[in-house]
Amino acid sequence: MTDRPPLLERKRRQARERIVRAAEELFDERGFDAVSITEIADRADVGRTTFFRHFGDKQSVVFAQEEELMATIAEAHGHTAAPIPLTPAEAVAQLRDIVVALCAQAAQDPAGYTRHYELIAQHTELQARDALKMQQFGRSLAEILTSRGADDNTAQLAAQIALACHQAARTQHHNDPRTLADDAREAFDQVLSIGSPGNGTDSQPAAD
Amino acid sequence: MTDRPPLLERKRRQARERIVRAAEELFDERGFDAVSITEIADRADVGRTTFFRHFGDKQSVVFAQEEELMATIAEAHGHTAAPIPLTPAEAVAQLRDIVVALCAQAAQDPAGYTRHYELIAQHTELQARDALKMQQFGRSLAEILTSRGADDNTAQLAAQIALACHQAARTQHHNDPRTLADDAREAFDQVLSIGSPGNGTDSQPAAD
Repeated sequence: MTDRPPLLERKRRQARERIVRAAEELFDERGFDAVSITEIADRADVGRTTFFRHFGDKQSVVFAQEEELMATIAEAHGHTAAPIPLTPAEAVAQLRDIVVALCAQAAQDPAGYTRHYELIAQHTELQARDALKMQQFGRSLAEILTSRGADDNTAQLAAQIALACHQAARTQHHNDPRTLADDAREAFDQVLSIGSPGNGTDSQPAAD
Repeated sequence: MTDRPPLLERKRRQARERIVRAAEELFDERGFDAVSITEIADRADVGRTTFFRHFGDKQSVVFAQEEELMATIAEAHGHTAAPIPLTPAEAVAQLRDIVVALCAQAAQDPAGYTRHYELIAQHTELQARDALKMQQFGRSLAEILTSRGADDNTAQLAAQIALACHQAARTQHHNDPRTLADDAREAFDQVLSIGSPGNGTDSQPAAD
């Protein structure tokens, strides 16, 4: 947190952020299909070459911030000391903190969050990319668990359950950014109490 | 099962099956990118018009059989009488049978199954479509539960957990079709015993 990146790296990041912001504005104003890469570059005050240094295509820009956030969070937690997750329950509990942190940070800009998912909802190809991106995040989650000593089966299952809780949270309250992190935490709590005595006939989730 | 579809419908289905088979053979022989729709239609002994009556594009053919299977299984189970799933555990248990049935049927042609996933692994766009297709299947699963009287939150969470078990099974044994259904069943059993006493420190999955 205290290391300042060198000037060139800061400028590179600023250009990237301008591209993402410009693309979001333009998609919002005119719709995803009607916006060209040249227009995004113009609004961001960069050349097309700079655009392609950062992004492979127009769709990638849509997921730039979320993927960066996922990478940052996965890396931070990858370096956090934690006990070996021996069971699916322990593994899922470890991933809960990561997914809730992701939800909390993704929703820090509620208007941007809502705009992002409204855009995705309108385009099947963006929905497909979104689903693929989540699977890639799932692989990062599984890697965190195996790096902590979990066996591969436990890591894969727990990672998929963590994605399930994230996805379920996105279906609650019409994917409201203000409730997203709480909805994710509740989904995890429900999963983690799924086999508890009494929960076969009791619809109450476990207390937090 | 005893109703025979009329002749025209049978012919339509046969043409569709020939297209799927022809596409699979050609993708296998020359790779997905190198095959044109005209070549698929020629090998299937149909015209391009017939191809487009069945499929929107080349990628759709890759998922034709699995999507048909998903629709058939979801519809069959949608009409099966079942108690109201009151808890996530009950809802997940009801979906277990559906997902295991899907795995068993998808793997009935092991060579075709393996060819299908090898093809997907080579193409990011097909991986994205695969991930999207699973999310669409998740919506069918949630609808089955709500049609049985489950509340929406329970249905959404259980559907996502069912997808998680399916996806976890695909990561086991290198997605071996011969073990897929058993792997899916075991993933469900592990999830359903996740909150059981002793399972916080005990890595054994529940007995079947």
